[in-house]
Amino acid sequence: MTINQQILLDNRPTAEARADNFRLASVEVPPLRDGEVLVRHHYLSLDPYMRGRMNDSKSYAAAQPLGEVMGGGTVGEVVESRAPRYQVGDTVAGMGGWQEYSVVDTSQPGVLRKVDTTQVPLSYYLGAVGMPGVTAWYGLVRICEPQAGQTMVVSAATGAVGSAFAALSKARKCSTVGIAGGPDKCRYATEELGFDACIDYKQHADAGALSRALRAACPDGIDGYFENVGGMVLDAVLPRMKTFGRIAVCGMISGYDGASIPLANPQLILISRLKIQGFIVGEHMQDWPAALKELSGLVAQGSLRPRESVALGLAAAPEAFLGLLRGRNFGKQLVKLI
Amino acid sequence: MTINQQILLDNRPTAEARADNFRLASVEVPPLRDGEVLVRHHYLSLDPYMRGRMNDSKSYAAAQPLGEVMGGGTVGEVVESRAPRYQVGDTVAGMGGWQEYSVVDTSQPGVLRKVDTTQVPLSYYLGAVGMPGVTAWYGLVRICEPQAGQTMVVSAATGAVGSAFAALSKARKCSTVGIAGGPDKCRYATEELGFDACIDYKQHADAGALSRALRAACPDGIDGYFENVGGMVLDAVLPRMKTFGRIAVCGMISGYDGASIPLANPQLILISRLKIQGFIVGEHMQDWPAALKELSGLVAQGSLRPRESVALGLAAAPEAFLGLLRGRNFGKQLVKLI
Repeated sequence: MTINQQILLDNRPTAEARADNFRLASVEVPPLRDGEVLVRHHYLSLDPYMRGRMNDSKSYAAAQPLGEVMGGGTVGEVVESRAPRYQVGDTVAGMGGWQEYSVVDTSQPGVLRKVDTTQVPLSYYLGAVGMPGVTAWYGLVRICEPQAGQTMVVSAATGAVGSAFAALSKARKCSTVGIAGGPDKCRYATEELGFDACIDYKQHADAGALSRALRAACPDGIDGYFENVGGMVLDAVLPRMKTFGRIAVCGMISGYDGASIPLANPQLILISRLKIQGFIVGEHMQDWPAALKELSGLVAQGSLRPRESVALGLAAAPEAFLGLLRGRNFGKQLVKLI
Repeated sequence: MTINQQILLDNRPTAEARADNFRLASVEVPPLRDGEVLVRHHYLSLDPYMRGRMNDSKSYAAAQPLGEVMGGGTVGEVVESRAPRYQVGDTVAGMGGWQEYSVVDTSQPGVLRKVDTTQVPLSYYLGAVGMPGVTAWYGLVRICEPQAGQTMVVSAATGAVGSAFAALSKARKCSTVGIAGGPDKCRYATEELGFDACIDYKQHADAGALSRALRAACPDGIDGYFENVGGMVLDAVLPRMKTFGRIAVCGMISGYDGASIPLANPQLILISRLKIQGFIVGEHMQDWPAALKELSGLVAQGSLRPRESVALGLAAAPEAFLGLLRGRNFGKQLVKLI
């Protein structure tokens, strides 16, 4: 008999998310039926979008039901199989959620995919070669439409999405500038991730000051901007956008806990003839194969070596998640379960 | 010897534009050189974009030089010609500016075009079958991407752009809803312009109330929105946008005099995966022929009969222009010169 530890959403946050919104539970793993496999999770992915699902209000993702296992991406290995296509020992990626094991009905298309760990570490399939990497690819390629010699900028630059964005943008011969919080992250962005420059937003008291720093780092203006943050950062970027600039809106983490984050000067959308587009990568599955192929190639050739923040043990997931929302992670936030 | 009355930009507004920013002048019409024609203007067009050009700050249009004739669209007739392609009596549209006559060098492509007044009144070439009409066409067709059965909304609904938008949207079998100021304009929008509904924003104290009125008028949500106004109206529209909705940003007249018009909830761009795009129709000349053809067809068949506000005499232009900025016009604002 196998015991499965789980983390459930116990109640919804009223403002900031808190650890006591979650609850730990233990259940027995049920016996498998035909077509099912049992996956033991090695890593659980923590991602900002999960904060939106904790609310009951309109968001882009369906609300996470109360009393159920928190949803989320996982990688692990098959430890028991009643599905002919899967063998014990196969390494797989799926959406197993915040728990140690998951039973997966493999007859549903797309719920589980085998992953090859000869050139790509297993955990990367939750980051650079997973949903965050494809997110960077889609926003850059399909919305920011980079051309060689143009300037591309990303906020939350050292996170899972930002790291992949840098490698993808440099591969297209774009000047690539990051925005991150703190000198360590900024140094890491330029020394390890390939950014041409990185601006520490914490060194700037307001949008005006941050905007001046952006002007120094992007003297020709910004052609494409990938937004993860919103608020002051977006206000600082907007005046620096070049005519016909493109902004991919992937996240606005500064507003996830309910803070008001108005956009100060929407007139600039007209003045600079900008295109601003929000997207969710799960709605663009047709682009995943090309994106994953490019991303795993960049990892294999050493141009994409993203950093990971690893919390240990399932019980550490809530605090690690809250840290992610506050920018305390450094690189892709994972929970290591085994 | 012909005397030409002109209105010059004398000084730049510090906040609201005022009549004393302008100055009346009289000059002699110079003798024509080869290739030139003398056009006597019948109508001068007044358009919101002119307010942006009065400022020296960054705008989408080059600043209007001080001490020079205010730029603007005109229609009139050729009264003297030293260009073989033009005969005295030809009716023409051009950018003659705020003056009674203009000398046009016809060797420059696109500065003057002959217009046919058998089915379309001359003044319409400044509105429905001119720049405002093409503006409506571009924003609707190229950005809002209407499909039959969808819901299209436009602010400043009874203006030159809004009138054309209604006819173009109805021709595409879209539910078409306007936003305008005052019961007379709203009644006119539904009774004469073909709007399915029109909301009087002046009846609503804040964005929340206006948004509730929009929900009642657009129970399925809004697929495409054409923005002329900004501010409270945009805040009211944004929550009503459907997933994957499109917003064409043509103007934000509520901010033209320097008022701060922050966008309250930019998070909705992400939540509803919106595309918001600013544009200036003069940068899309390739679409003008198709747009003008459709617009003149709609006029000829009687489906586009826009209203005009006509001020009399060049000296009335400044006050008529200030009225336009404050929404006191009703339909396309013109100055009749002859």
